[in-house]
Amino acid sequence: MQNVKVIIWGLGAMGSGMANMLLKKKGVDIVGAVGRGAKLGKSMYEVIGTERGDRPDVIIGTPEDIIKEKAADVVLCCTDSFTSKAFDRLKFVLEKKINVVSSAEEMSYPQAKEPELAKQLDEIAKANGVSILGTGINPGLIMDLLVVIMTGCCEEVEHIVSRRVNSLSPFGPAVMEEQGIGISVDEFKKGVETGHLAGHVGFHESINMIADAIGWNVEKVTQSMDPIVTDVDRKSPYGFAKAGDVAGCAMKGFGYVDGELKIEMDHPQQIEPEQVGVQTGDYVIIKGTPNINMVNSPEVPGGIGTIAMCVNMIPHVINAKPGLQTMLSLPVPRAIMGDLRDQIDPDCKIVK
Amino acid sequence: MQNVKVIIWGLGAMGSGMANMLLKKKGVDIVGAVGRGAKLGKSMYEVIGTERGDRPDVIIGTPEDIIKEKAADVVLCCTDSFTSKAFDRLKFVLEKKINVVSSAEEMSYPQAKEPELAKQLDEIAKANGVSILGTGINPGLIMDLLVVIMTGCCEEVEHIVSRRVNSLSPFGPAVMEEQGIGISVDEFKKGVETGHLAGHVGFHESINMIADAIGWNVEKVTQSMDPIVTDVDRKSPYGFAKAGDVAGCAMKGFGYVDGELKIEMDHPQQIEPEQVGVQTGDYVIIKGTPNINMVNSPEVPGGIGTIAMCVNMIPHVINAKPGLQTMLSLPVPRAIMGDLRDQIDPDCKIVK
Ligand SMILES: NC(=O)c1ccc[n+]([C@@H]2O[C@H](COP(=O)([O-])OP(=O)(O)OC[C@H]3O[C@@H](n4cnc5c(N)ncnc54)[C@H](OP(=O)(O)O)[C@@H]3O)[C@@H](O)[C@H]2O)c1
Ligand SMILES: NC(=O)c1ccc[n+]([C@@H]2O[C@H](COP(=O)([O-])OP(=O)(O)OC[C@H]3O[C@@H](n4cnc5c(N)ncnc54)[C@H](OP(=O)(O)O)[C@@H]3O)[C@@H](O)[C@H]2O)c1
Repeated sequence: MQNVKVIIWGLGAMGSGMANMLLKKKGVDIVGAVGRGAKLGKSMYEVIGTERGDRPDVIIGTPEDIIKEKAADVVLCCTDSFTSKAFDRLKFVLEKKINVVSSAEEMSYPQAKEPELAKQLDEIAKANGVSILGTGINPGLIMDLLVVIMTGCCEEVEHIVSRRVNSLSPFGPAVMEEQGIGISVDEFKKGVETGHLAGHVGFHESINMIADAIGWNVEKVTQSMDPIVTDVDRKSPYGFAKAGDVAGCAMKGFGYVDGELKIEMDHPQQIEPEQVGVQTGDYVIIKGTPNINMVNSPEVPGGIGTIAMCVNMIPHVINAKPGLQTMLSLPVPRAIMGDLRDQIDPDCKIVK
Repeated sequence: MQNVKVIIWGLGAMGSGMANMLLKKKGVDIVGAVGRGAKLGKSMYEVIGTERGDRPDVIIGTPEDIIKEKAADVVLCCTDSFTSKAFDRLKFVLEKKINVVSSAEEMSYPQAKEPELAKQLDEIAKANGVSILGTGINPGLIMDLLVVIMTGCCEEVEHIVSRRVNSLSPFGPAVMEEQGIGISVDEFKKGVETGHLAGHVGFHESINMIADAIGWNVEKVTQSMDPIVTDVDRKSPYGFAKAGDVAGCAMKGFGYVDGELKIEMDHPQQIEPEQVGVQTGDYVIIKGTPNINMVNSPEVPGGIGTIAMCVNMIPHVINAKPGLQTMLSLPVPRAIMGDLRDQIDPDCKIVK
């Protein structure tokens, strides 16, 4: 079998990380990279900061240049957070009869916020005999799939709390700005009102994914966003919050079933949590038969986790039935420590 | 769509528990029960200790009486631990063109100890257009699938420890005997030598499942079994160990890859662990990129967990491609809080 052929669209933090991860794996080649602006015409190796060695060069091009019909087995799309923004790009790839993994948060369960676009993507994928999946660490695993799997050993589920307490310290300037790090409480409140502060995208997706999985009919999802005000000065590589200002953003999500609050998401993100004695971790707390009380501490880091999830799902996406897939419809994610080709169904290989 | 039709073979602790769980669910009917000896001719409701209400009675019969061609969508086989012992029963069901869920430990990954029988089951299932799955709490979820899913967010995995520290107090006389509760250390050692003490069945299955999932080639699996000697008298509903005697059984399993110990299973089981300050729990500890350090405490109880896993996997088994399936090949398990039929692909329904 030929190596699995991958194209990466968007060489930001995630796309570059996936490229570097793939370069360490057996049985897989990066055969193209799509960028824009100043990146066009450059070598992918230069952009991701890795020695090319004796590999053939990968010159960053436009989608039209790079994504030709059946040019790869899968395209990793790492450009967007929202389904509506990503849609034309995803469609472009599917119509070239290539499978897609998207890191867009909303794409982890596009049924939640964009049911119409989800339906269209499903139809386009089916018409072209390929499949498409959105995944990542969260949404994608921690606050949703991990909850679902733990309900698997429950006879009954009454109430779910999914909590992710994580550090923003490893992240760069874009995240600092999105989360309001270093601004005043007033500025934060204004940012929330105007929609300037993005915070976490994914509660609708995670809540609907869990509910659909276990057969709860979610009638309402709400969320809240509050500043985490620091008592002491906190400093991370790209962030600084002085005492009294905002060191993080505490988001909560609420899913209602039959008028009752059944699914709670609790996701406080801040720089330097250790400094104030906050222990980071991923929690799954299920009230049911039996109760589940699970914690992974410290939390799975968001960057590495997302890179790994997108890459590790490649075989499942290639092997999947055509159409829109989700983490609920595919087998469980798993690391790839052997040859990637060993996990591929030959009938599903595109580049034969 | 007609309700999902289930037959249960073996009304012991697990089979009876599954019956009771199914009776609380929507969109599913128990249409038959297979037993032997004194149970034959009795009402299933009498045996499982539940009011029949206005449900039609289910009279326990022989396999020939009950398991007619396409008489149900799935048979839950809860009679055995070993593939070789279960084989003829599983074959019998498959040849009646009905899907199977087995609670036999070895069936959770029969490829590990019985590759030849696994191949035969796969062929028989395919020839009859149905599928077969072995599952349970452990093997089936805690010490294997949960590890696999957490490797899904890892770029690299170097070493795995899977630990389950659990209480045997809820279990009955059979388990007390299998695990050597209350006997002397000498008797325990003799029991291990003669193979009289069964201990935990499942390390070969769990280790091979994890290794195959992530692409490690396991060349050797070994295991050890030691008495947990108590300092104080311990008493559980069905067990008693006086100070100096055996209150439990500590099993370890070791999976070697390229001459290196890569997967460790650590499974101490005892009565009344709380009495001596032992905190029970399920642990997944992965050395890799990133590290994973997860615990669910207290542990998922083995009985409820197995009952739930077998029942909750029914839709996935009905929907699966024909053949031998494993927890690696199917979508993640999940609780069933809605109508079971909502999860069934109409094309895959046997009793139309
Ligand atoms: N589900 C999850 O858990 C999860 C986790 C992490 C990230 N994400 C999401 O995944 C996306 C990528 O994350 P990131 O950290 O890599 O963001 P990033 O560092 O901002 O990278 C995005 C990249 O996409 C490129 N891009 C955007 N539009 C493009 C276009 N039309 N053509 C070519 N390239 C284009 C950008 O190019 P320029 O550099 O030229 O602008 C940039 O390199 C984000 O939306 C993020 O929110 C999800
Ligand atoms: N993977 C896991 O995590 C997991 C967890 C729990 C249990 N298990 C396994 O699942 C199996 C069932 O567990 P359990 O706790 O229910 O055991 P159990 O209480 O001993 O029940 C076994 C039942 O099977 C019946 N049976 C055996 N052979 C039969 C036959 N030929 N025809 C009809 N009925 C037959 C027995 O009938 P009689 O009462 O007439 O003898 C008994 O009712 C065991 O092998 C156990 O080790 C696996």
